[in-house]
Amino acid sequence: MTAEQARLGRVRAALETLGAATFLVTDPVNVRYLSGFESSNAALLVGADRVLLVTDGRYLEAARDVGGVEVIESARELLPFLGARLAELAEPPVAFEAAHVTFMAYEALAAGGVELRPAARVVEELRAVKDETELEAIRRAARVTQAVFERLAGEQVAGATEAELAWRLAQALHDAGADEPAFPVIVAAGPNAARPHHHAGSAEIGAGTVIVDLGAKLGGYCSDCTRTFASGGALPSELERAYELCREAQAEALAAVAPGASAKAVDAIARRRIAAEGHAVVHGLGHGVGLEVHELPRLADTSDATLAAGNVVTIEPGVYVPGAGGIRIEDLVIVADGGPEVLTPLSKRLAMLA
Amino acid sequence: MTAEQARLGRVRAALETLGAATFLVTDPVNVRYLSGFESSNAALLVGADRVLLVTDGRYLEAARDVGGVEVIESARELLPFLGARLAELAEPPVAFEAAHVTFMAYEALAAGGVELRPAARVVEELRAVKDETELEAIRRAARVTQAVFERLAGEQVAGATEAELAWRLAQALHDAGADEPAFPVIVAAGPNAARPHHHAGSAEIGAGTVIVDLGAKLGGYCSDCTRTFASGGALPSELERAYELCREAQAEALAAVAPGASAKAVDAIARRRIAAEGHAVVHGLGHGVGLEVHELPRLADTSDATLAAGNVVTIEPGVYVPGAGGIRIEDLVIVADGGPEVLTPLSKRLAMLA
Repeated sequence: MTAEQARLGRVRAALETLGAATFLVTDPVNVRYLSGFESSNAALLVGADRVLLVTDGRYLEAARDVGGVEVIESARELLPFLGARLAELAEPPVAFEAAHVTFMAYEALAAGGVELRPAARVVEELRAVKDETELEAIRRAARVTQAVFERLAGEQVAGATEAELAWRLAQALHDAGADEPAFPVIVAAGPNAARPHHHAGSAEIGAGTVIVDLGAKLGGYCSDCTRTFASGGALPSELERAYELCREAQAEALAAVAPGASAKAVDAIARRRIAAEGHAVVHGLGHGVGLEVHELPRLADTSDATLAAGNVVTIEPGVYVPGAGGIRIEDLVIVADGGPEVLTPLSKRLAMLA
Repeated sequence: MTAEQARLGRVRAALETLGAATFLVTDPVNVRYLSGFESSNAALLVGADRVLLVTDGRYLEAARDVGGVEVIESARELLPFLGARLAELAEPPVAFEAAHVTFMAYEALAAGGVELRPAARVVEELRAVKDETELEAIRRAARVTQAVFERLAGEQVAGATEAELAWRLAQALHDAGADEPAFPVIVAAGPNAARPHHHAGSAEIGAGTVIVDLGAKLGGYCSDCTRTFASGGALPSELERAYELCREAQAEALAAVAPGASAKAVDAIARRRIAAEGHAVVHGLGHGVGLEVHELPRLADTSDATLAAGNVVTIEPGVYVPGAGGIRIEDLVIVADGGPEVLTPLSKRLAMLA
């Protein structure tokens, strides 16, 4: 049995809980996960006895190579097509991915009169636990970020803008084997480092902290790693203290990562540590990484997840000093018995950029 | 009055047609278009007398710089927050962007009991007609693609893979001033050129046609241009004829682009020409380009659009010969009285790549 067939079996086993006879999967990443089929316009209808793969003419040839599914040719407008044909194609009720289907697409789907059931996080929960092949793909993607950070140590940064450094790092990701960056490279320097949503702008990198947050995508799987550096001489003591605080909070949270641990409790370790020093905690501790760079489980104070062996998560607390700078330190780890496997074993000691 | 204020006025004028007292805008590109505010998590509530800009704490400081709006701080989960507060914040009924809001977000929004009205393409229709500032931004983005195609003429391509050439072209886009590629660079060579959804893979570029389709994003606005080349010697006569057919179909369709022309009729010019030679027409003639690389108006046999001065559209027929190769020739043009302004004035004569 292929990995995809095993995954489809798990979706089938979930049908009863969903109160549905068929599960309609429309998110392209979920379709890929369950069938191996990559397309911008495809859907799976997973029933108890059969699986239909629905796609338009452009992808038909490739779809016929997918094992264990019946291929149905759709019009280019996939959900209106399914709306009109759902009664013949699927046994009702049909559960659908309510976090991905737009209201307009829902109306088109409902137009055929088949009973629909909104469902959430079904395939996403399955994707949160990786199999060995997936773990190996993520380890490979993480080795690429490792190589990029090692190259960064030798870069001349003074006088460059954030955007220029981000571009050099994007080139380094390519040179180290990435198919593409997992997300646009983040370089946040000086006061911009205090803004956790900052990407990379036209500001010259001067004195202060420099947050570098990047990931590789390779064979479909992502990695994600952040380190924070000092540039332009020694940091003011306030930022130096913030760095040590972030480093300690990260290490303490990391040490608590284990199968069975509550994601909210692991988040709380870093959160309390940072808040106790009077800093605002402006984002959660981390997130799952896999086919997408943000997936389940979330590690945050609103998370209800329990960590499981085979989860791949980031541990990335941030300490931000408005107007002055900020620090974020992020490792990518596999949740495992006997302690997390850290995929980003780079130094976390404060280092200077030249 | 700023451009954004004028745009908000147009949305306000549409409220009556929508049967709504308030229009809730949640698509990030539409929010940016109407307010100039860039954020991954923001919404506008446009009423007859006031405009609310709703965003979470991370973006609050930037939101306060936006003129003519009242800023409301939201929780991180924006639509559930709005669902709970909609009765106080907005006069009902509230129209919402049904092509962007997911079914799950709709349910969260509806939970507050305020009457909702699905609406489609309201801001997208406004965005289809560009003002002079936008046209200038798109001209700038188009000059970047121009420079990249000029550099391509001098590149040594033989022996490179599609992905390697695509990466070199991505670097050229950066060097020519792009903030980023408008979409992943497409290089489809040999038999892959026959597959209109192909991106760039590990295939070596050998004998046959090579489709190069790329665009720049610059200051938020996109460009898009395609040329098809020959590599590895003269093309087989079948592909040479297909090239000339594509070139003629493109020129004929381009000549018909004018304010008041039906998008479907312009599409039909190329479509009939290509079909008359026995080729399948596997995609529409073109699409609008602006803040997004695919926007309104669509030029296709299912389009109901009428072209208007200030539209910016691609004219890109394709002729595909299954198993052998394919040709696509794409110009980006401004629809204008007195004939289209072609922003991609590159030669369309068949050229060889070295």
